[in-house]
Amino acid sequence: MKISRIRTAKGAIVHAVLEGDKAQPISGDIFGSWKKDGRPVPMADVKLLAPLIPVNLLCFGKNYRAHAAEGGEAPPTEPLLFMKSSSCVTDPESPIVIPRVAPGQVDYESELAVVIGKAARNVDRNDALSYVFGYTCANDVSARDVQGKDGQWSRAKSFDTFGPLGPWIETELNPSHLRIQGRLNGKTMQDASTADLIFDVAYLISYLSQGMTLLPGSVLSTGTPAGCAFAHTPPAWLKPGDVFEVEIEGIGVLRNPVVGK
Amino acid sequence: MKISRIRTAKGAIVHAVLEGDKAQPISGDIFGSWKKDGRPVPMADVKLLAPLIPVNLLCFGKNYRAHAAEGGEAPPTEPLLFMKSSSCVTDPESPIVIPRVAPGQVDYESELAVVIGKAARNVDRNDALSYVFGYTCANDVSARDVQGKDGQWSRAKSFDTFGPLGPWIETELNPSHLRIQGRLNGKTMQDASTADLIFDVAYLISYLSQGMTLLPGSVLSTGTPAGCAFAHTPPAWLKPGDVFEVEIEGIGVLRNPVVGK
Repeated sequence: MKISRIRTAKGAIVHAVLEGDKAQPISGDIFGSWKKDGRPVPMADVKLLAPLIPVNLLCFGKNYRAHAAEGGEAPPTEPLLFMKSSSCVTDPESPIVIPRVAPGQVDYESELAVVIGKAARNVDRNDALSYVFGYTCANDVSARDVQGKDGQWSRAKSFDTFGPLGPWIETELNPSHLRIQGRLNGKTMQDASTADLIFDVAYLISYLSQGMTLLPGSVLSTGTPAGCAFAHTPPAWLKPGDVFEVEIEGIGVLRNPVVGK
Repeated sequence: MKISRIRTAKGAIVHAVLEGDKAQPISGDIFGSWKKDGRPVPMADVKLLAPLIPVNLLCFGKNYRAHAAEGGEAPPTEPLLFMKSSSCVTDPESPIVIPRVAPGQVDYESELAVVIGKAARNVDRNDALSYVFGYTCANDVSARDVQGKDGQWSRAKSFDTFGPLGPWIETELNPSHLRIQGRLNGKTMQDASTADLIFDVAYLISYLSQGMTLLPGSVLSTGTPAGCAFAHTPPAWLKPGDVFEVEIEGIGVLRNPVVGK
């Protein structure tokens, strides 16, 4: 099932189940009880929004071996958590805005994002996927100059619009062998499989939940494969006029144009 | 004015204005329009909760010169942002729980916390304090072993109960010269003034808001003075049976016992 968040022609913001070319608005709590309101609307009449504003946006670094290597680093021995501010989340088709204070080294990171559906604490790896509501695409946009200067990564990755998310949440999906691609202006820059994740989805949930409750509505962004802008010669930094697409098998395409400030 | 969040004798969770020994429950949005409901309740009959669950918990590192020095580091040339998960926030008088996976080096950090009241983006330093709703006390509890191992600080600082916040929000306060103290079992471990902040509250808001919107309900924790557990010989790591108090002049005392897992 595809769960989206939409803005209707009348300006209401609601969750909706997508069925073919129709969106079925729902009422209630997508993580609790909800029902379709029985008045489907044509997709052509709605704007797809980020499928949720994460309660916490919990991200993992260097979780594909080839990406760690392109950054000149050894793969981590345990998952490496950092956080993005929820204020950076933006919608499918909405622009990634190059920030005025850090215009020069804006990079993309195509990632499988996991939406937590029920509170997870001290969860066993074998049971971890039962806490997942569904999966979507994320672009962990990053200002590499700020990332390097700060050392801590949150500011570099939390500028407004640096968190494209969507286009919807797919609730029925096995996350273990999905092709994940990143395309810049139609050219494939990242192409890997979630089978290449050093720490898979179940491991990440189990590991992070030891002593830390993952709340419903939290999003775990699982890390990006090799092929980032910084690893190209010359670097393929995002610039106004670009379009970046994250495509994940079984989910869909998250597409965002890039604009200047 | 003191704005709190309380659990009433009937179990309702509401915001309330504190007046003497009474809590005046309010309805509405504390960042928008609200009113007292006219039915004050005795403070003795309510439980004080963390005054809000932050939309984003945005923290600054090494923002007192003497604390940077005790960690063997130069003071930063610009504010250093990191984030804690909102899932770690806990109430006044509620226990700080030593996590089973990181029991050995749990430290305290007494901090002035700033509650943002209206969306702040590209804010001038001279205008920055007009975006503040009020001030409260925070304890940025930190598992130093995890902090050192991960390099990124979010996991070490986001274990459940690692974010004591309160006891209430003081809305009328000049943040520039407030005494801030941390006491372990009654003994003063940290004692400084917010006048010693390398980057003051207005600077932090202005700086962080460049390209990043600070949403209403976001909390900025401004950094801790010298005197952390790790800097004592032997280190004064928190252990079951301890009590830690953060006291800030003009606000009050945030007190939490420490328990084992």
